[in-house]
Amino acid sequence: MRGFSERATVEQTVAWLESVLPPFESLPVEEVSLLDGATRILAHEVKSLVNVPAFTRSMMDGYALLGEQSYGASNYNPLPLQIIGTCFPGRPFDGHVLPGQAVRIMTGAPLPDGADAVLPVENSSTQGQTLLVMGEVTAGKHIGQIGEDVSAGEVILPARRQLRPQDIGVVASIGVGRLPVIRRPRVRIIITGNELLPAGTPPEGCRIADANGPMLQGLVRRDGGIAITRDIVPDCPDALRAALADEADVILVSGGSSVGQEDYVPKLLSEAGELAIHGVAMRPSSPAGMGRLNNRLVFLLPGNPVSCLCAYDFFAGRAIRALGGRSQDWPYRRQKYRLSRKLVSTVGRVDYARVRVSGVEAEPLAISGASVLSSTTRADGFVIVPADCEGYPEGDEIEVFLYGD
Amino acid sequence: MRGFSERATVEQTVAWLESVLPPFESLPVEEVSLLDGATRILAHEVKSLVNVPAFTRSMMDGYALLGEQSYGASNYNPLPLQIIGTCFPGRPFDGHVLPGQAVRIMTGAPLPDGADAVLPVENSSTQGQTLLVMGEVTAGKHIGQIGEDVSAGEVILPARRQLRPQDIGVVASIGVGRLPVIRRPRVRIIITGNELLPAGTPPEGCRIADANGPMLQGLVRRDGGIAITRDIVPDCPDALRAALADEADVILVSGGSSVGQEDYVPKLLSEAGELAIHGVAMRPSSPAGMGRLNNRLVFLLPGNPVSCLCAYDFFAGRAIRALGGRSQDWPYRRQKYRLSRKLVSTVGRVDYARVRVSGVEAEPLAISGASVLSSTTRADGFVIVPADCEGYPEGDEIEVFLYGD
Repeated sequence: MRGFSERATVEQTVAWLESVLPPFESLPVEEVSLLDGATRILAHEVKSLVNVPAFTRSMMDGYALLGEQSYGASNYNPLPLQIIGTCFPGRPFDGHVLPGQAVRIMTGAPLPDGADAVLPVENSSTQGQTLLVMGEVTAGKHIGQIGEDVSAGEVILPARRQLRPQDIGVVASIGVGRLPVIRRPRVRIIITGNELLPAGTPPEGCRIADANGPMLQGLVRRDGGIAITRDIVPDCPDALRAALADEADVILVSGGSSVGQEDYVPKLLSEAGELAIHGVAMRPSSPAGMGRLNNRLVFLLPGNPVSCLCAYDFFAGRAIRALGGRSQDWPYRRQKYRLSRKLVSTVGRVDYARVRVSGVEAEPLAISGASVLSSTTRADGFVIVPADCEGYPEGDEIEVFLYGD
Repeated sequence: MRGFSERATVEQTVAWLESVLPPFESLPVEEVSLLDGATRILAHEVKSLVNVPAFTRSMMDGYALLGEQSYGASNYNPLPLQIIGTCFPGRPFDGHVLPGQAVRIMTGAPLPDGADAVLPVENSSTQGQTLLVMGEVTAGKHIGQIGEDVSAGEVILPARRQLRPQDIGVVASIGVGRLPVIRRPRVRIIITGNELLPAGTPPEGCRIADANGPMLQGLVRRDGGIAITRDIVPDCPDALRAALADEADVILVSGGSSVGQEDYVPKLLSEAGELAIHGVAMRPSSPAGMGRLNNRLVFLLPGNPVSCLCAYDFFAGRAIRALGGRSQDWPYRRQKYRLSRKLVSTVGRVDYARVRVSGVEAEPLAISGASVLSSTTRADGFVIVPADCEGYPEGDEIEVFLYGD
């Protein structure tokens, strides 16, 4: 048992991560149905082969006519036209509209031949089959042109787009039924610790239930990954070696990451692959580590649940999002608040300070131990205090990353 | 065919919605596994029956000892103690620590009897079975107390909480394996329109493919609902009447909402239930409507896809989120930008103006028709211009609701 000889800074750690992150194209492309497309990351651009709409259509309920036939019309000078038919969406009018004539038309219906404008129903009245035009419309008015929404050959969505509901709608309208998306990163979660009982089990004597497994699964899903789990792995080199060999795009190991007597994982990783970072100048999470094994990123997350959460968010989550083509930014909303009490921090390490917010104020939580996971459920968010800063006085404006909602 | 006689304002429409929204408790509670709990809404508060930890434990790798035995110790004055054993997480040390003695201890291991502090490994060295104490620790130092994280009887999560990954972790640690959450609102999506082909079908003549079905499914899922769909319903009163009678918590009807000749839905709803709002002073979405049928909210969304998106976001999404216990706020990040061009709007109606953003500037999109769905995919977000406002000049600071990422 020894201490960490030297800790990397958070900046050094992120820089290492950036230097080894595989490019966007590293995960294979898969096709999904439109309904499964929302929130996924588009692998290639989507180009339309068709015009939407493919025909000239009415944008209003009203009357299709020749615009010039309405000139001079007003409430005080209604001009009569003969109504010669009706056209509905999907059911065009068969004939031709001549001067002196009009065709009843619904929103979305194809404009009949001969007509060049639509008079809104609000600017009209009728007497039997006679339309009284009570306003002017110029040619092209209230008409949707061919290709107005999407024109054939146009790129409608760029590669790497996180698909929004309306994107799926546009794709549905151009005759494309499946979308090429980046496969979700498969993230193997290895929970280790002889003292651990399965998540959701009541604590027994000096054994505690695993909190990190379900927490990490929620985090991985949030970041667009597929969490792959297995039973808790005992603190034993052979079992850990076998677990590390399992297939995955990214491996998260919770526990056994430090320099204690049963912290086997750093040694195993450095023997079988590369332990690039071990020990980070931050609190909590200082025993975090990371490296590579068979070309896959491996994150050693401390077993202490707050450290695990924090190390995940600082490093692992960033990598999982990047691998899946998502933004590396933290998925927490940021907002400025005024500190209601001073926030003390130690120079030389980054601090992850949990705060409660109320109105415009943020209050640092008084936490006896950095390991208290309930601090992250009582808190509304956190403040990151840089390594060169000894904290902030009461009244300072600080940026809070909000956990929730 | 007639125009809308009078349109409700957006405020009146939201006020009606607020007045009829069922209370939080209206949907039944269901139990889900911890893994399915993340992002769900907690139905009841969760109270812990146990202490976490249930024992006094070490927060560091180091040596358990009596703090007073370290007084006066420093790098220059190392004090020797006899190492009498080791304790690991889950494997306590059996004996009792006396003055002059220490026990090797790992983070998370139970503190042995007799010891009252942990000396971090960094402040020590060893010579065989002799520990050299090279720093002082006071009683209680680096010790996690019983119940420090969660104490028995404590409410750890309030009702109505949207569950975060760390919430699931805390619940996992107290021996609770399932969570009571509010059942997701079941939202029936009825797509009507004789001109429509199924989503993803290439357009054919004057028939277009349904864009609203998949878009609405994405929106409903985003807002925590379960989308229930069926084939496209023809514009025919009997078919629509049957579709409206299907089981659901909320009904969305896309198309047939206006005052055209085949817009049957408003009439059907007013006959069978209540059509409270029909026509809203906004653009797009002015033909939107809403009401109730057999105690369920029914939203009439215009068939035009942008109107459909906009009416969903202004009204239906709010109701679905509220019903499921979520915040009624729009799920779009808001940010201030400077207008790079003037934004013109018409007094008397709320405008939903799509913009592109770049750096600190927002540029209104030049859109020929409000119905162009691709405008919402080219845009980065939108600005809501109130009814009493005729727009904003170039250079004004405006708030943009960002669609994406």
